[in-house]
Amino acid sequence: MFDPVEKLKEFIRHPSVSTDPAFREGMKGAQGFLAGLLRSLGFTVEEVATDLHPIIWAQRGGDPKWPHVVIYGHYDVQPADPLNLWKTPAFEPTIVGNRIYGRGAADNKGPLMTNIAAVAQALEANPGLPLRITFLVEGEEEMGSPSFPKFLERYAAKLREADFVYLSDTALVDEHQVVITCGLRGLALFDVQVTGPKSDLHSGLHGGVLRNPIQALAEILATLHTPDGRVNVPGFYDDVRDVHPWEREELKKLGGDEKAYAKFLGIDTFYTTPGFTPFESLRFQPTLEFNGIGGGYQGEGSKTVIPSKAFAKISCRLVASQNPERIKKLVMDTIRARMPSGVQLHFTDQHNGEPYLVVPPDRSNTPPDQSPVLARAFRATETAVNEVWGRPPLFLREGGSIPIIASIKAKTGLDSVMFGLFLPEDNLHAPNESFNLDVMKRGIETTRRILTAVARG
Amino acid sequence: MFDPVEKLKEFIRHPSVSTDPAFREGMKGAQGFLAGLLRSLGFTVEEVATDLHPIIWAQRGGDPKWPHVVIYGHYDVQPADPLNLWKTPAFEPTIVGNRIYGRGAADNKGPLMTNIAAVAQALEANPGLPLRITFLVEGEEEMGSPSFPKFLERYAAKLREADFVYLSDTALVDEHQVVITCGLRGLALFDVQVTGPKSDLHSGLHGGVLRNPIQALAEILATLHTPDGRVNVPGFYDDVRDVHPWEREELKKLGGDEKAYAKFLGIDTFYTTPGFTPFESLRFQPTLEFNGIGGGYQGEGSKTVIPSKAFAKISCRLVASQNPERIKKLVMDTIRARMPSGVQLHFTDQHNGEPYLVVPPDRSNTPPDQSPVLARAFRATETAVNEVWGRPPLFLREGGSIPIIASIKAKTGLDSVMFGLFLPEDNLHAPNESFNLDVMKRGIETTRRILTAVARG
Repeated sequence: MFDPVEKLKEFIRHPSVSTDPAFREGMKGAQGFLAGLLRSLGFTVEEVATDLHPIIWAQRGGDPKWPHVVIYGHYDVQPADPLNLWKTPAFEPTIVGNRIYGRGAADNKGPLMTNIAAVAQALEANPGLPLRITFLVEGEEEMGSPSFPKFLERYAAKLREADFVYLSDTALVDEHQVVITCGLRGLALFDVQVTGPKSDLHSGLHGGVLRNPIQALAEILATLHTPDGRVNVPGFYDDVRDVHPWEREELKKLGGDEKAYAKFLGIDTFYTTPGFTPFESLRFQPTLEFNGIGGGYQGEGSKTVIPSKAFAKISCRLVASQNPERIKKLVMDTIRARMPSGVQLHFTDQHNGEPYLVVPPDRSNTPPDQSPVLARAFRATETAVNEVWGRPPLFLREGGSIPIIASIKAKTGLDSVMFGLFLPEDNLHAPNESFNLDVMKRGIETTRRILTAVARG
Repeated sequence: MFDPVEKLKEFIRHPSVSTDPAFREGMKGAQGFLAGLLRSLGFTVEEVATDLHPIIWAQRGGDPKWPHVVIYGHYDVQPADPLNLWKTPAFEPTIVGNRIYGRGAADNKGPLMTNIAAVAQALEANPGLPLRITFLVEGEEEMGSPSFPKFLERYAAKLREADFVYLSDTALVDEHQVVITCGLRGLALFDVQVTGPKSDLHSGLHGGVLRNPIQALAEILATLHTPDGRVNVPGFYDDVRDVHPWEREELKKLGGDEKAYAKFLGIDTFYTTPGFTPFESLRFQPTLEFNGIGGGYQGEGSKTVIPSKAFAKISCRLVASQNPERIKKLVMDTIRARMPSGVQLHFTDQHNGEPYLVVPPDRSNTPPDQSPVLARAFRATETAVNEVWGRPPLFLREGGSIPIIASIKAKTGLDSVMFGLFLPEDNLHAPNESFNLDVMKRGIETTRRILTAVARG
């Protein structure tokens, strides 16, 4: 059995920055490292070519009657800039206390290595473990997984042979409390541009005869929320599923100090959907946010123009079972209907992401047709976490989005068990990223138990 | 008597770009040229030092009982960039047909040379002309006249000895129709910034709990106009003077094709103060415009942040007798009162400019205490224009602002006779600026007659 921490160090030393062509060697190194490691565990490894970075597809086959888990991860990392803010070299893993520092330590090399080590231990303990295992490790996660949809089309049939997806690319509350993420918000993104006069105008020579595009844009945007915090678009909430009492109860167990949260954000008042606490609102409710706005003169001092154009970047976070295309159409139609006179509208479509929700077994809203293997995986997860961490996991929705999880569900029917392994203090996407080695150790043991229990049936 | 066109060529050859230190020699050259020319006409010339570019102060004294006119102009010009769009060299004056091309030809070297030549001819015809004349020619007009207020403090007493200001830095309707500008709008400029969370936030992890600063800003801005086109700030119109019927009549004579104007602007609907045509609205009514807006992500594609801040640049154009400080306070107070919860406001003050209005003699709203010399200047202008151009001038307010005119009035009590000499097609501030030599010729003759008539009493 290999030493998981030593292997993680080796993994981190490959600077696999997917977005920067200068790191091509690092990407290749990380691919080769992973393929070699999985082969050494007896996996049949395929490096599936994409338009950019290959996907590692590694299989341990077996009796078709055995349960089949797909373990997802990604081998690419965020850029390490600004390098001068790192206390230790970004690609030279350094252990300080119970933490290993380095780019990708927590996102996602540490958690992925945790799951590989769990598989290795399970197979060492029982080489005949009746479990089919497929590793699906992509190299474009930090770029928004552009090659994933095409891969999914090609591998859908193979994925459908599996029972569920298992991954560790979400967060724990703290090092004592495990979270199993059951819901992710979807996304519907687009830009709106308002055009008035055909060029920027002198506000003295022409001011007072036409509607300023910034004014028109502000007038439109100001209609999109009610004063009490709902999205003011007819039909926006039509497909939002009820939140079940067990979800609110589960979230209550998380605790959370509203005052401390407000302080962390730097605000003095929350602004949530009516009937929802802040912690509920960001998990259970959809949003319509303005991510950017621009128009006219933005420099120092003043320039007295009436601009020809102004634009806003809009994103909706969606919850089950809202449809991004439908929501986008509703919002665009509403904006069109509320457009003031004297200006033109132009929309630029950006991407979508489906929301995702999986309900653990034995809940009031568990689908009656839930896969028995998935149910078993959830129950095994609850038991293993209880045993290893001394308290049960929380089953929570999260406010963020991992669009590939909903895509996998849509294309293959597979649900995901998302076992969080990184911590808020791990500095993901920031300098001095690190991973807690105690969490890693407990994570290996937990995942080993889960996989063994799923195999046992 | 010098040849005005040859002298104008010489003047244009000095590249007097005030904003760019690389043109220091050009500025010095233009100053020296002007000082020399005015000295050759018998003027006592002082180059008044300022923090940046000297002001030319040239006097022809005489009997204190003689009327006294201050002729204003500026010797600095706009930068000539982009140079590649010029068909002839920007600082090598070139005559094509009845036009002289070159940077500054129309703004303000041509019109200023017109007035200098008129003075020269008047004095040549009558060396004992009973008229005191002071030239006040600044070198920072294209920078917003930053040194002018300090100059005005120092020279206020001397200026108070004069009877009126005469200048040609406004526009004609076309080469057949003279306009005497009687009103200029003032300015009140400031920025408003809305701050929400202490840093940009991930819209997934935190979206749904707080008011987005862009939303708050849009909500504020959207309240500042009524749907029918008034500024929705209590008290905003309190000090706006009634427009007198003669002003509307005068403007009607200007004609103006609303359809053609809408087409020129590229809009399909006007949005004016109720009760005013577009041509009236931009001259007679104040405005509140958004000159710029910014916040969050403005690049290509998407970045799903909730920004920490958003800002707008606001400018009000004011009419007589609104006070910029009072209006600024009203608008800021209104914004404060309408600020939604969960955000903070921060204002950044920009500059102000007083509105200006002078009423020609014999109108229903002519002040009873109007200076007889000013009244004589207006009457002389009307007569001279009638004789030289074959039709009377139009006495009109303009939508733009020349803040120094109101400053001179406020500090010294002097009113201005603004005799327009440039044309819409002269390309001010743009490549291929030019000045119409027929307009120049008629301008010299008109101003000569006006000054002679004012002197005659």
